[in-house]
Amino acid sequence: MALLDESAKGVYVIAVTPFADDGALDLESTDRMVDFYLGKGATGLTVLGMMGEAPKLTGAESNTFVKRVLARVGGRVPVVVGVSAPGFAPMRELSESVMAEGAAGVMVAPPGSLRTDDQIYHYYEAVAETLGNTPFVLQDFPLVTNVQISPATILRIVKALPTCVMLKHEDWPGLSKISALRAASENGERRISILVGNGGMFLPEELGRGADGAMTGFAYPEMMVDVGKAYAAGDVERAHDLFDAYLPLARYEQQPGLGLTIRKYTLAKRGAIASGALRKPGPKLSSSDIADIERLIARQTRRLAEIG
Amino acid sequence: MALLDESAKGVYVIAVTPFADDGALDLESTDRMVDFYLGKGATGLTVLGMMGEAPKLTGAESNTFVKRVLARVGGRVPVVVGVSAPGFAPMRELSESVMAEGAAGVMVAPPGSLRTDDQIYHYYEAVAETLGNTPFVLQDFPLVTNVQISPATILRIVKALPTCVMLKHEDWPGLSKISALRAASENGERRISILVGNGGMFLPEELGRGADGAMTGFAYPEMMVDVGKAYAAGDVERAHDLFDAYLPLARYEQQPGLGLTIRKYTLAKRGAIASGALRKPGPKLSSSDIADIERLIARQTRRLAEIG
Amino acid sequence: MALLDESAKGVYVIAVTPFADDGALDLESTDRMVDFYLGKGATGLTVLGMMGEAPKLTGAESNTFVKRVLARVGGRVPVVVGVSAPGFAPMRELSESVMAEGAAGVMVAPPGSLRTDDQIYHYYEAVAETLGNTPFVLQDFPLVTNVQISPATILRIVKALPTCVMLKHEDWPGLSKISALRAASENGERRISILVGNGGMFLPEELGRGADGAMTGFAYPEMMVDVGKAYAAGDVERAHDLFDAYLPLARYEQQPGLGLTIRKYTLAKRGAIASGALRKPGPKLSSSDIADIERLIARQTRRLAEIG
Amino acid sequence: MALLDESAKGVYVIAVTPFADDGALDLESTDRMVDFYLGKGATGLTVLGMMGEAPKLTGAESNTFVKRVLARVGGRVPVVVGVSAPGFAPMRELSESVMAEGAAGVMVAPPGSLRTDDQIYHYYEAVAETLGNTPFVLQDFPLVTNVQISPATILRIVKALPTCVMLKHEDWPGLSKISALRAASENGERRISILVGNGGMFLPEELGRGADGAMTGFAYPEMMVDVGKAYAAGDVERAHDLFDAYLPLARYEQQPGLGLTIRKYTLAKRGAIASGALRKPGPKLSSSDIADIERLIARQTRRLAEIG
Repeated sequence: MALLDESAKGVYVIAVTPFADDGALDLESTDRMVDFYLGKGATGLTVLGMMGEAPKLTGAESNTFVKRVLARVGGRVPVVVGVSAPGFAPMRELSESVMAEGAAGVMVAPPGSLRTDDQIYHYYEAVAETLGNTPFVLQDFPLVTNVQISPATILRIVKALPTCVMLKHEDWPGLSKISALRAASENGERRISILVGNGGMFLPEELGRGADGAMTGFAYPEMMVDVGKAYAAGDVERAHDLFDAYLPLARYEQQPGLGLTIRKYTLAKRGAIASGALRKPGPKLSSSDIADIERLIARQTRRLAEIG
Repeated sequence: MALLDESAKGVYVIAVTPFADDGALDLESTDRMVDFYLGKGATGLTVLGMMGEAPKLTGAESNTFVKRVLARVGGRVPVVVGVSAPGFAPMRELSESVMAEGAAGVMVAPPGSLRTDDQIYHYYEAVAETLGNTPFVLQDFPLVTNVQISPATILRIVKALPTCVMLKHEDWPGLSKISALRAASENGERRISILVGNGGMFLPEELGRGADGAMTGFAYPEMMVDVGKAYAAGDVERAHDLFDAYLPLARYEQQPGLGLTIRKYTLAKRGAIASGALRKPGPKLSSSDIADIERLIARQTRRLAEIG
Repeated sequence: MALLDESAKGVYVIAVTPFADDGALDLESTDRMVDFYLGKGATGLTVLGMMGEAPKLTGAESNTFVKRVLARVGGRVPVVVGVSAPGFAPMRELSESVMAEGAAGVMVAPPGSLRTDDQIYHYYEAVAETLGNTPFVLQDFPLVTNVQISPATILRIVKALPTCVMLKHEDWPGLSKISALRAASENGERRISILVGNGGMFLPEELGRGADGAMTGFAYPEMMVDVGKAYAAGDVERAHDLFDAYLPLARYEQQPGLGLTIRKYTLAKRGAIASGALRKPGPKLSSSDIADIERLIARQTRRLAEIG
Repeated sequence: MALLDESAKGVYVIAVTPFADDGALDLESTDRMVDFYLGKGATGLTVLGMMGEAPKLTGAESNTFVKRVLARVGGRVPVVVGVSAPGFAPMRELSESVMAEGAAGVMVAPPGSLRTDDQIYHYYEAVAETLGNTPFVLQDFPLVTNVQISPATILRIVKALPTCVMLKHEDWPGLSKISALRAASENGERRISILVGNGGMFLPEELGRGADGAMTGFAYPEMMVDVGKAYAAGDVERAHDLFDAYLPLARYEQQPGLGLTIRKYTLAKRGAIASGALRKPGPKLSSSDIADIERLIARQTRRLAEIG
């Protein structure tokens, strides 16, 4: 499998981890989900992301799940694996294992204890040393990690660590950060790939600032794909029209705490996975929640039909 | 002026604090802003909110500003004043002063050091004792305060402290919290007013769960007013149509850090205040930010025309 | 091996994880360390604690290390294993594995996301369900976890979950918490074991409030052992004399960030382990740090000789 | 009054705010307290510190209190006033007022929202601009502010902002930070005063790294004074002997939450203030707490007699 590099673009869907209603890992749904995402135009997949249910898996289950995803993908698109860990030994172990199995790269979020610029830089320096030749994605997600990484610190990492090839941009707000990084690469700094997160809630504006696509898990990946295509074709208003049609649901899915449950409900409804169940512990949807989602999906369908 | 009570409903706009470009408090714009908000259908105003520029005012300026707002409102709608403070002596001082000048009630957010249910309850017990007969709004805004208040704790406060008459609901996600509070009042607990925040980003769903309206500062207060009217009239789809038309801009304005600057830019553009300037320290909009806002406003105008 | 129960008392030393200078797990030192701790009077051992280097071990290394400790202890004292994990599947897996190998119980700290009393209680309810019959220690360490657990919540856990047999008390300050829990057990609530942490910095006062001993890793475990004996013998002033002799060094070792490095330096100097090295990433001692430690040890030795 | 400058040294006692049992500001005790602190050898005083009861004062009370302190001091030692505030307008207002009344300088802690090096630097740049010619103390207290300031950032502030003349060093652990700053001033950077906090819990080691004294509020200021004198006289072991005699009580007073209550109890017992009462809200000492304190004071008295 080709390794991830700075030219990555498009939509890397953050995959959910499918479970049966009884909490068992659902490998058949794993296959179905891979096919679903690729069928909707995903140009890459990301698994074991920090916001999902990866920490609920045992070591053996993680391994089984990643192998299954890689086998089903079969090299059609690159697969990124989240390897954030409290120590470098388990990070190295997981990284070497998934790269040997065919992953294209790994993703690392900073531990919540980092504060100063130097602490953040030195952490990623040690990450790069740990990972060796494996390309990695810097996950910048302050809302969850509580770590704020300035553009200058990102540029310092990019300059010193050639295996850092992508930024998963999830700062919020972060439009000016994309602008600053792109201005720097126009001034000669290495240009890395920037894929945006936050459920795609700012996708058109982020594309306008120079993002190369999205890496997030909204249950309608075709939104990101189609918005990206319209933007690339120069039809900015069309990109916004599409985006606006999906925004009410994307917003609802982006609720902290409940978001993943909403996403899995929708994916199950769409047939991507057999069950929307979360492995315990996890919240459940109320009947009011479900009524909200159903209304939003119905309205979204109507609106998409209107704009054609 | 009538005091705030549990029957409050509608749209209490969180007012900005207008400054001239040189940073001086702009009292003329204060008048204009009051007229603008009331002209758009506000059923109340809230000033000196914790997310705004209140902390940038000197004590004397705060006093001048509140007096000016109260004078201009002239009793047409109730005015709530934020009095959150690190100590009870300044809280009492400010509260007594604004109530004497005609405010309808005050609003208090919890200090960020509170963690356990008991700590939160005892804090509000002391708040109520401090405020005497003055009705107060409990501001529940975990994203900023870092204090999480369970429904059970809110109900304990409501039961024990009769001067707590309103919840400014800004938990996120918080739909199930509204449902839990309303279920309790159907079971005999005192029913207080619930007005929602978060820029109105979940307004239709929140109204569906039993919210009485909104208390937030989106630069198009008519969105909250009209969505609320459609909802009250039973036309839920119409409520969503209106909401969806404003959502792309509301989302953009809701960015942490930059949001207030975007809001003031829009209010200045709409003629509600003379200048969109923030008093230092505060971020400035880039030309890309302004282009984003202008596109969103133009699209919003078109979409509103389409839905009629 | 007998299981941990509410009658546990004395000194459970939090064991370090010995590494060679090149970062390899040092199993020979593991044996020597076990002998050292037991030779100093430890009545129990705790391994894989959250503040140590457990997260730096791979899964296989963790397993090897725990097995080695259990083999060397050979049932002479109970061994508690830290199993805190972001998900219940890995927690169950680790817990079942170490209990099968002869551990006496496990220890679980709350994840940092918990805030309200209910969230904390329900988390431990799920922990107890996950662990089955395995007795567990509730680790209450707000300075690191950022979770504050009220006495009422601890008592709710104690009442509902019979497998919760011990509190590792590391709230700070926490004297009143011990008093409240002991008052409750005098009023009929189940009395669980309370062992204190924080490097033993408040040990004599905590014993005075009803603690049953200490669970912490100060490099001179005999301090905790001897203070406990003097206290049990009713010689409170003698307990304080001993405590005061060790306090200057205990205080120095208690520094966040650098503390473990200081502890391992001292343990290596005492011959308990071959090398004081931390596995990367970890801080190093400067020559000034070492001079400080050496002076404090020399002074401690003199002072202990004086008090006899 | 002479302004504070980089040559400041010795012991700047953080003064408590004396209240009567009924919560009224106690101005007579304010005089007595000033005399007490100066009688024990304080070379400066600091009032309205962020950890004390300053936020419980109304604006008028703050003013009255500062005036009273300044009048009683009568220029005998410099007085520093804490002016940390959420906005620059109230910071300027308070600073100008106290400087006009004879303060020697002001102290500013960073707001808890700051994270990156640039954010911290730019905040202090704006502080310096706000304060004009007034010299200020940078308060570095991560345990409370949650802001971590690297030595490089402090040096950047020192280089660019000549009115920053002192660091109140309260990082924990922070010995290496003092070492780094002093190494920099040996390499030509401007040398500012460093006074240490944390209740003096690391005073001898901090003096060894180049601190110029202490700025903290331990109820026995003579500890800091005498340790500093012994250290300055080159008698390091004597400095430690004195320090060790006070350490058990200093440690007990350093408990978060309860510490100020313990300090005021002790100050009242020593006759420095009439009542140990905290203005509400504030914790109360239990009889067990008081018994602990009394034992520690008795033991301290005996130990001081022993070492002569």
